[in-house]
Amino acid sequence: MFIPPVPTLHRQGNGVVILDQTALPWQCVERRLATLAAAAEAIASMRVRGAPLIGVTAAHGIALALVSDAPDDAALDHALAVLRATRPTAVSLAWALARMEKRLRPLPIAARREAAWAEATAILAEDAATCEAIGAHGLALLRALPERTGRPLRVMTHCNAGWLATTGAGTALAPIYAARDAGIAVEVYVSETRPRNQGLLTAWELATVSIDHILIADNAAGLLLARGEVDAVIVGADRIAANGDTVNKVGTCLKALAARASGTPFYVAAPVSTVDADAASGEAIPIEERAAEEVLAITGLNDDSFPRRVRLAPESTRTANPAFDLTPAALVSGFITEHGVIAASRLNELPQGAGT
Amino acid sequence: MFIPPVPTLHRQGNGVVILDQTALPWQCVERRLATLAAAAEAIASMRVRGAPLIGVTAAHGIALALVSDAPDDAALDHALAVLRATRPTAVSLAWALARMEKRLRPLPIAARREAAWAEATAILAEDAATCEAIGAHGLALLRALPERTGRPLRVMTHCNAGWLATTGAGTALAPIYAARDAGIAVEVYVSETRPRNQGLLTAWELATVSIDHILIADNAAGLLLARGEVDAVIVGADRIAANGDTVNKVGTCLKALAARASGTPFYVAAPVSTVDADAASGEAIPIEERAAEEVLAITGLNDDSFPRRVRLAPESTRTANPAFDLTPAALVSGFITEHGVIAASRLNELPQGAGT
Repeated sequence: MFIPPVPTLHRQGNGVVILDQTALPWQCVERRLATLAAAAEAIASMRVRGAPLIGVTAAHGIALALVSDAPDDAALDHALAVLRATRPTAVSLAWALARMEKRLRPLPIAARREAAWAEATAILAEDAATCEAIGAHGLALLRALPERTGRPLRVMTHCNAGWLATTGAGTALAPIYAARDAGIAVEVYVSETRPRNQGLLTAWELATVSIDHILIADNAAGLLLARGEVDAVIVGADRIAANGDTVNKVGTCLKALAARASGTPFYVAAPVSTVDADAASGEAIPIEERAAEEVLAITGLNDDSFPRRVRLAPESTRTANPAFDLTPAALVSGFITEHGVIAASRLNELPQGAGT
Repeated sequence: MFIPPVPTLHRQGNGVVILDQTALPWQCVERRLATLAAAAEAIASMRVRGAPLIGVTAAHGIALALVSDAPDDAALDHALAVLRATRPTAVSLAWALARMEKRLRPLPIAARREAAWAEATAILAEDAATCEAIGAHGLALLRALPERTGRPLRVMTHCNAGWLATTGAGTALAPIYAARDAGIAVEVYVSETRPRNQGLLTAWELATVSIDHILIADNAAGLLLARGEVDAVIVGADRIAANGDTVNKVGTCLKALAARASGTPFYVAAPVSTVDADAASGEAIPIEERAAEEVLAITGLNDDSFPRRVRLAPESTRTANPAFDLTPAALVSGFITEHGVIAASRLNELPQGAGT
């Protein structure tokens, strides 16, 4: 079982302690959340991020709401609405909230508080177990790749879908941790992931567990794939349509196109709760548009010697800043889930597809 | 005729004045180059950049070398070698140096100094005229695009191939300037172009001439193309193989793949001197690997309140930093040259292909 060097989220009394990911990679800072508002802010501002961890945090946000309010239906409805509005794309948010609601709504008000903590804790534990299973199924895929001579296995990823994005070994990175534990020499191409630079989180995460890694500009992925430097691409997912179209961090579809052009397998690693049975295809999935400042200015670096905002472009410069993009199912070699590696055409046979 | 708001390079007595592009977009600073070494440093450190401007600067570097040295064959050979070693990929560097050598070598030593300035000046003037012709031919392409309703023509570019990259209207941006002058409403998607952020140069350049523009993370190109937000992609080129394979700023091939997937035309705008007749295909073209610091640290920002170097990744993080990539000829809809728009299969019929 993979144990994260620092827990990404854990309960502490009537509060929740998170690793504040906006301070990484400069500072490893924990932050205590005591209220619904604090949980919502942590999700919206990306102090916690990564689809699975967003779901776990939302579940705990419900528990926090029921600590501070009389947990009647109005309080529950309010908490669900506040958390649902934090970020639109990751289906695990809606999935976790739906699960909390289903568990709590039928209960007498007096029983809801304890049940909310119990259900949130269960979601957290299941997330870690899911990561472990994804790692094992992904390891089998990595073992089946053609033999290499003279260099380690090289996996390219995008954004951060590792232990920082979950409460366990991660999704896209879980097979890499499993490979290392199995004695396979492995290194990871880490894509910077502009504009929020989550690749720096991945570099930091891999450094904490001593996995060799190579940081690249997002732009470099095409050349490296074309040159045969990469044995497989593995990414996470924020929401998967019923037909296998995959919404993940912006830039993913460019890697999928380049992987296909170079004949490199391209895998999506995600829990089955990421599948949105209500979305027939990717076009039905909302794509979050984030603030222009993410593109126009360098912000949020937590080194005190670093100014909080340096504007990068002229005042007349506009932006477009979609946080996700859509990879057509046809470009996905397989989905690595906790129930095994499956093709897009078989997603609808999964034991638990989520509806929102 | 497009007149740049600031000359990118001009002669001043026995020296050359450049616009120092490492200070942009924060400061608009000119810098005087008086020696061969200064010219070589300006190219290698990207104070001047963009394939055409690199060629013009190298030609002037020869003139500077012959000012300060007795212009015998040894001095000429030394200057050619120093400048040739500055950057490996842009063929305009080799092309300009070969042209200078061909002009100067047969001359008596006493005649070389004046001839060097005259030839460098001719190369500069021809570059500006070439840009103008590329703009006119590109404008015809833009006019032929399907009619749009309710929004301006939208062209996506990558890196900077505008007036900052030449001594005229640019290559990829020349058709945009021509379109604006022809009364066509046009706006430009500007890709950030990590790791050196030349997209910020493009945003600054477009702001100086009041062209509407939208800055995006490189990762956003795929989604915008898939959504039909872009009418055409136009990029420059650093070297084009005889078969049309195109080496340009890293990230170009990802845009070409996404353009093809979305049915958007993808054009390469470049002078015919960019074609390397000695390179049968793209595999023959060397790809420059640049310093790790470009990926690992934020550097070179010239706002005094900004630290010169902030390390972004752990000490154990390695990098790969190819400065260019290779777009297969099959993904190029056409080459916009000073002699017209031509297909890859007809590149070998051009009036002047460069050999190195």
